[in-house]
Amino acid sequence: MHLIIDGQDVDKKKLEDLELIYRILDKLPDEIRMTKIMPPYVFKYKGVEPLDWGISGFVLIAESHISIHTFPERGYVNIDIFSCKWFDTEIVISYLKNIFSLKDLTIKTIERGLEYIKNG
Amino acid sequence: MHLIIDGQDVDKKKLEDLELIYRILDKLPDEIRMTKIMPPYVFKYKGVEPLDWGISGFVLIAESHISIHTFPERGYVNIDIFSCKWFDTEIVISYLKNIFSLKDLTIKTIERGLEYIKNG
Repeated sequence: MHLIIDGQDVDKKKLEDLELIYRILDKLPDEIRMTKIMPPYVFKYKGVEPLDWGISGFVLIAESHISIHTFPERGYVNIDIFSCKWFDTEIVISYLKNIFSLKDLTIKTIERGLEYIKNG
Repeated sequence: MHLIIDGQDVDKKKLEDLELIYRILDKLPDEIRMTKIMPPYVFKYKGVEPLDWGISGFVLIAESHISIHTFPERGYVNIDIFSCKWFDTEIVISYLKNIFSLKDLTIKTIERGLEYIKNG
């Protein structure tokens, strides 16, 4: 299962908060009973286009990953939660909606992973 | 743009080749003119289920990431190429098809990223 959440009009303060992004990546795996296999890795980057600076972060969980890319100047955030095992997407959506105060968001769910292998 | 490629019946030798996964993550960004912002990070993991061991790897490129998860015992591989900017998906598909000798594969393209922001 691969859950994709893209949010717009997000509070700039939240999107530029390295500590917040780290905390989400640190806590979210526990919320959906997944096993982190490394501490989160977060950092600030600057794009070629000055408005594209932001924070990128990810954490690897067993057989899968969670990533977050933020664009504070654009109020934009891209979040991926990909696991080869089933997880409760509603918990994740609710958790992230709450933490980022997401109102204008796009959610996509893609069926992939071990559970979708043919004859698997 | 987010390109998702899942391959089945892939040669076990390739899927357990840490060096190969590293090389793909190191070279692919250049193929599609993206800027790596870190060296690739690859490692072997063991799942709770013994058959689920494999290699995970990713590389961060400006504003985005590439990730690969392999399952040698299942001949299964999951690849994500996510960029906030346009890239030539055909080049990536052809490159990966060739390197993994992919025949049985699922390809999905998801429109997301800066180019899809409303009023962006």
